Amino acid sequence: MDQSNYSRSFSINEDDNAIKVLVATDNHLGFLERDPVRGQDSFKAFEEILKLAKDNQVDMILLGGDLFHENKPTRKTLYNTISLLRSYCMGPRQCNLQFLSDQTVNFSDSFSTVNYQDPYFNIEIPVFSIHGNHDDPSGFGSLATLDILAVSGYINYFGRSQQVDNIEVTPLLLQKGTTKLAVYGLGHIREERLHRALRDKQVKMMRPIETPDEWFNLMVLHQNRQAHAPTTYVPENFLEDFLHLIIWGHEHECLIDPVFNSEQKFDITQPGSSVATSLVEGEATPKHVGLLTIKGTNYELKKFRLRTIRPFIVDEIDLTSLDDFLYSKPKEIQNLLIDKVAYDDRFKIFNIRIFGDQFIDHVANPRDLLFFYRKKSSKGKRAV
Amino acid sequence: MDQSNYSRSFSINEDDNAIKVLVATDNHLGFLERDPVRGQDSFKAFEEILKLAKDNQVDMILLGGDLFHENKPTRKTLYNTISLLRSYCMGPRQCNLQFLSDQTVNFSDSFSTVNYQDPYFNIEIPVFSIHGNHDDPSGFGSLATLDILAVSGYINYFGRSQQVDNIEVTPLLLQKGTTKLAVYGLGHIREERLHRALRDKQVKMMRPIETPDEWFNLMVLHQNRQAHAPTTYVPENFLEDFLHLIIWGHEHECLIDPVFNSEQKFDITQPGSSVATSLVEGEATPKHVGLLTIKGTNYELKKFRLRTIRPFIVDEIDLTSLDDFLYSKPKEIQNLLIDKVAYDDRFKIFNIRIFGDQFIDHVANPRDLLFFYRKKSSKGKRAV
Ligand SMILES: [Mn+2]
Ligand SMILES: [Mn+2]
Ligand SMILES: [Mn+2]
Ligand SMILES: [Mn+2]
Repeated sequence: MDQSNYSRSFSINEDDNAIKVLVATDNHLGFLERDPVRGQDSFKAFEEILKLAKDNQVDMILLGGDLFHENKPTRKTLYNTISLLRSYCMGPRQCNLQFLSDQTVNFSDSFSTVNYQDPYFNIEIPVFSIHGNHDDPSGFGSLATLDILAVSGYINYFGRSQQVDNIEVTPLLLQKGTTKLAVYGLGHIREERLHRALRDKQVKMMRPIETPDEWFNLMVLHQNRQAHAPTTYVPENFLEDFLHLIIWGHEHECLIDPVFNSEQKFDITQPGSSVATSLVEGEATPKHVGLLTIKGTNYELKKFRLRTIRPFIVDEIDLTSLDDFLYSKPKEIQNLLIDKVAYDDRFKIFNIRIFGDQFIDHVANPRDLLFFYRKKSSKGKRAV
Repeated sequence: MDQSNYSRSFSINEDDNAIKVLVATDNHLGFLERDPVRGQDSFKAFEEILKLAKDNQVDMILLGGDLFHENKPTRKTLYNTISLLRSYCMGPRQCNLQFLSDQTVNFSDSFSTVNYQDPYFNIEIPVFSIHGNHDDPSGFGSLATLDILAVSGYINYFGRSQQVDNIEVTPLLLQKGTTKLAVYGLGHIREERLHRALRDKQVKMMRPIETPDEWFNLMVLHQNRQAHAPTTYVPENFLEDFLHLIIWGHEHECLIDPVFNSEQKFDITQPGSSVATSLVEGEATPKHVGLLTIKGTNYELKKFRLRTIRPFIVDEIDLTSLDDFLYSKPKEIQNLLIDKVAYDDRFKIFNIRIFGDQFIDHVANPRDLLFFYRKKSSKGKRAV
């Protein structure tokens, strides 16, 4: 089953009071772009996402950061990205979202306007994005590549904190029919600093004054969710309990089915990256994006499995049987990524390059096909 | 006189059969952008040019290359440039130029369309540009920064030769009322190679088949006009004699009044750069851009002196009287550029930095204020 539904015990029909949002994150455009086999992977996945948005006539696309893999993407990556956004986001259809918050506060570009309201642009599907750690503002003028896309009119870049210590998160306030959506964006901030700020209650989440309870409160952030170290992640219970749903960017493993946090009473969805940037198990699980439909203060999240993703198999194989394993794969997954091969003393002297070249037509990553570890007698295995 | 008219013995009235083109070149956007005093100079001049285009309701802007000073401009420069183009070139007015040539041949971007005909963009003033040697295609994917602006819809980048040896120049064919305009663009090509190609008749200028004599033939190129060496420039008589007017980019000195070449029977205008990128005499002459009006096969070129240009004085001053000279300048040209100061043996030991700091509020270039040469007895002077 490629499509499945997560629903918080209700169902939503297509109507004028529902806001439809295509949710994705960590597209890492330009990842490995010089690789002759994998160079287009990030763009193909992003195009599939844009196509899903268009086919499903969503009201907006919401991205969770790391749109670009490099802080300074090449001209080719920037070119491809703008080309895709221009192809899919512009069109004759109108975007029916009312924009209620102060755009000069939400957006820092010099036009201070949401792109679909610019009279000289016909934006059919507005893209809203925060920055990640890969594409954060930096350098002369302290701009992000997202600023270039914003000033060009192709995305709406939000969630950049103006102050270092007192962080104010001012939501985008959107309305369609009776549904009111507040989107709280928090672009990547250095982990320790945000941890401290949240702990010390120095992150102000600005709520609408009028009828605060009528809003669906959606947050998107780009931070560690895994506790690699005590202060380098965001504990879920540091986030405000008035939120309904949190879209967690930065973590690349697709855990898109919303998980209820019983303490804070909100759900968290972690869409994961749309391209595997490291050959680890978390990236080998199927990749999805979400179609979020919000009606009143309820929501439904339908997930779509991305079909352009290159198959990636992590398996433990004895080197003596690797040939059989590779050649047994059906033709259609010839260009798979593969990882982890066991070896023992018989293969001590071993040239990875020569080895990989044998499989050049069968795998997409002949150069980093193997992750070696030494088989221990029987007590277990340890990575080298 | 800031505005003056050059006219080829006729006059043109405002009408529906005339094509109006704002002509400029070598804007070198981003030049010295980190300089606290001069950092905005290139952008101010470019904005003045765009404003002139808008105020005069031109049909198009034609740029002669080196729009950017750096091959890879900073994000800030790219941001400022797009911001200016968006502010001045988009608008409610329609561009009334008929576009008759094959756009897929004229433009190499993936949309292959002139920007003012894109149904999702409201371009009021289309910008057409060739590349110069500062902003030529290069790097991974062999793209120019102009390609980014093209795929974004902000300029129409043309004049890039697809082949190295057989250069074909396919004109933009534009029509308004009874006036037909063919624009031949030739982006910068390495000097020796173009010299050889022109000499060997390997540059094909494609003329419209039907009624070739009804077209006004305009060429824009970006090459050396000065013969610094025998084969590193384009001799004027290497260019086709069916041309009516040539806009010569790359040379920074403003020699905008058209000069008749009696051998080839065409005129040449050299607008010069809109920012002084080197402190030499050629850059100290007043900077202008041109308002070219074409009607039938006649034209008129009205020049506008740019008012945002920082005053630049090249003078020879004895070091003993420099103070008097600087402080005698009127307040309004306090931020002038200044060059060439004579010194003699009394000033042998001399710290330029300390010297310049005295005039930090009076000149824009305190750090490179002086170009030293030694006064020779009376026989004449020689630069050091
Ligand atoms: Mn990421
Ligand atoms: Mn990240
Ligand atoms: Mn130049
Ligand atoms: Mn040049």
